[in-house]
Amino acid sequence: MTHMLNETHNAARRSFVETANDPDTDFPIQNLPLGVFSTKADPNPRIGMAIGDLVFDLKRASGADASFTRPVTEALREASLNRLFSLGQVALRDLRRTAADMLDQGSSGNQVRRHASGLLLPIDECTFHLPTGVANYTDFYAGIYHARAAGALLTPENPLPQNYKWVPIAYHGRASSVQVGRGPVRRPLGQRPPAAAGEDPSFGPCERLDFELEMGFYLGGGNRLGKPIPIAQASQEIVGFSLLNDWSARDFQRWEMFPLGPFLSKSFATSVSPWVVAADALAPFRVPVLQRPGGDPRPLPYLFDEADQAEGGIDVHLQVDLSTAQMRSAHEPAVEILTSNAKYLYWTPAQMVAHHTINGCNLQPGDLIGTGTISGPTRAEFSSMLELTTAGERPVVLPNREQRSFLRDDDEVTFRGRCSRRGFVPIGFGSCVGRIAAAEI
Amino acid sequence: MTHMLNETHNAARRSFVETANDPDTDFPIQNLPLGVFSTKADPNPRIGMAIGDLVFDLKRASGADASFTRPVTEALREASLNRLFSLGQVALRDLRRTAADMLDQGSSGNQVRRHASGLLLPIDECTFHLPTGVANYTDFYAGIYHARAAGALLTPENPLPQNYKWVPIAYHGRASSVQVGRGPVRRPLGQRPPAAAGEDPSFGPCERLDFELEMGFYLGGGNRLGKPIPIAQASQEIVGFSLLNDWSARDFQRWEMFPLGPFLSKSFATSVSPWVVAADALAPFRVPVLQRPGGDPRPLPYLFDEADQAEGGIDVHLQVDLSTAQMRSAHEPAVEILTSNAKYLYWTPAQMVAHHTINGCNLQPGDLIGTGTISGPTRAEFSSMLELTTAGERPVVLPNREQRSFLRDDDEVTFRGRCSRRGFVPIGFGSCVGRIAAAEI
Repeated sequence: MTHMLNETHNAARRSFVETANDPDTDFPIQNLPLGVFSTKADPNPRIGMAIGDLVFDLKRASGADASFTRPVTEALREASLNRLFSLGQVALRDLRRTAADMLDQGSSGNQVRRHASGLLLPIDECTFHLPTGVANYTDFYAGIYHARAAGALLTPENPLPQNYKWVPIAYHGRASSVQVGRGPVRRPLGQRPPAAAGEDPSFGPCERLDFELEMGFYLGGGNRLGKPIPIAQASQEIVGFSLLNDWSARDFQRWEMFPLGPFLSKSFATSVSPWVVAADALAPFRVPVLQRPGGDPRPLPYLFDEADQAEGGIDVHLQVDLSTAQMRSAHEPAVEILTSNAKYLYWTPAQMVAHHTINGCNLQPGDLIGTGTISGPTRAEFSSMLELTTAGERPVVLPNREQRSFLRDDDEVTFRGRCSRRGFVPIGFGSCVGRIAAAEI
Repeated sequence: MTHMLNETHNAARRSFVETANDPDTDFPIQNLPLGVFSTKADPNPRIGMAIGDLVFDLKRASGADASFTRPVTEALREASLNRLFSLGQVALRDLRRTAADMLDQGSSGNQVRRHASGLLLPIDECTFHLPTGVANYTDFYAGIYHARAAGALLTPENPLPQNYKWVPIAYHGRASSVQVGRGPVRRPLGQRPPAAAGEDPSFGPCERLDFELEMGFYLGGGNRLGKPIPIAQASQEIVGFSLLNDWSARDFQRWEMFPLGPFLSKSFATSVSPWVVAADALAPFRVPVLQRPGGDPRPLPYLFDEADQAEGGIDVHLQVDLSTAQMRSAHEPAVEILTSNAKYLYWTPAQMVAHHTINGCNLQPGDLIGTGTISGPTRAEFSSMLELTTAGERPVVLPNREQRSFLRDDDEVTFRGRCSRRGFVPIGFGSCVGRIAAAEI
């Protein structure tokens, strides 16, 4: 079994941080996701862990406690997670165990409590930074329900590409514009397609601004150029998961993407959640890969691994909420507009890693990989406005009677993700939030 | 005029380095390209400048001479050019002027000569490193003759995309696998398309391995997220140019690229030349942009600038040589298989920068941008094997009677580039070399 259960998954374990024992928290002691934060008092970005409604300052904790290994202590001095991630899954597992012991309601927790004023900070008072300095960002297209639905709208003559069931399709994304969720997302300017054949394209703010609900995952040590990562090892190379919003300008995309794929329609912004949930914390929630219907080809050998087939999927319940300016001024809460689940991916993260490197391409510590939009089989699980509204033809009607074909200025989109399984404490991903800012002309 | 001439372009100027005064050298005192090198005696990568057949160690020179400004001196302590490039074109111009004074055959050169043993190193004894830590690599498709020729082969029903004359098409490339020319290029493994409709794809080493002749250019300070670089300023943001080989696996490409563009067919390797020729050194060789035929649309306003139209092109004569294992064992020299010219680009580098950032995408110091394959209008100027051999149907016949449809193992491909204009000393780019290594299975 690739994804081993250990004492960090023990449902009986509780923290002295009371909010971490709340059954609704995303961040019980069984999760302990990693992030990079700063505070007003100390504006230097540093590495922390979420526990209930607090952030555990790992940099300070490691300086004050000899329980951390030396490589981990050194990595915790950095302002990003790259170096820590480069140590790999095993080092992260040890770090989470050590931290769990310190945060446990038992005796060892007392040490933390003693200087808790400096080590534990209210999550609401923290500013979050990009978890890793993203050197490379790749976005896959592994959600087959999305590929089919989007394909039917963008290329109706060919809804599911011929290569889809053989090739985990992907494109290189723009690393520099990856940002941590809750920044504003500026509506981009660009070329919009000709309104009719023979007409000229127009120029201006995007008129079909969209989100795409994805998961992201981060690489550990990576591989050297020319040395593929075999599928049986690929899962070990992934250190953690997050939520990812692949913001998309649909009008630009339709016009620009032939023949080399999406470019400006995506590169203006990609948002990730502040917290990276360790691969290890997700072990209880691994599920068999999406059942391939009869007639689907068996993955080629470099993409096939028995263990990956058995537990390469992840059961993460995903949810997208929308809040408009009108709703906020009326003090109305955000509205859930869709739910989906990461188990709907046709290709597993391990298959994505094996495919990405089969040509010798080198992955680097902290590299970010998006899964592609994770839609489900039903309309309520369509995970972009493009799909939800049939390319704008069937607007979503909100409870306050506002309608949305695509996103308007000041719309705020929030992604959430949560894992539940009988016998285990549920864990969550926090949120990935973006609010649309008007174009600057 | 955007590209100003100054004393560094003075044809009468000579260096005390005799080989720099050879009319055939790529590196006269009028060029002074930047690179990152190391030596056996000092294996630490550091910044240098090519002068004749020598490398001028700028790190040591700046430590020993107070003529360099403080920001430049600090940037010269780095092991890559990113920080130096972030200072922008003006700082680079000053650096090249200072270095030219030190290398001049007049008095000031004597200072350098006095400790020349440490400051000037034989180029053949140096190892070269990637000029910048490439954070982001973007590849355009700005060579219209290539787009038309490749389009006719890959998508015969639609040789030139409908958007081509409006949109400077590009895709995000893989930054991690950019390497400095003369490393081995490993033949990649991957999925090859089904031999016939209804058949399965096959897996194995690429059977249609190709080069693409491009120029690359590097960004200076870049821009902040959400702040486009206007076309009138875009040329100032480019600090230097190099040769670039966009290695391509044509069989993988045809199978994988619909709908999101090339991925594994490119990401196994991209080679750049060791030397970055400063934008300033190229000022004499700027030419009007490629004449748009009647009926071609005028570029949209965000892509149109009078000065850029007048001198946004670059007259760089380009050449591709091929050497095979059989040729080398018979002591036969490499064979020129094609020539082309950077003036054939349909979109200028400034237009590429303006387009890249119009959606707010942030460019970063040291970012690398490829122009796309630069083919010319005649068959002798087709700048990839795909085009030269009509997708393998008409193999190239070499003088020793060997034939090539695509590249074989141990084939060595060398790019060269050279600028000439009456009244100016010719300058060159050195070479960008790659030799194909057998696939590792």
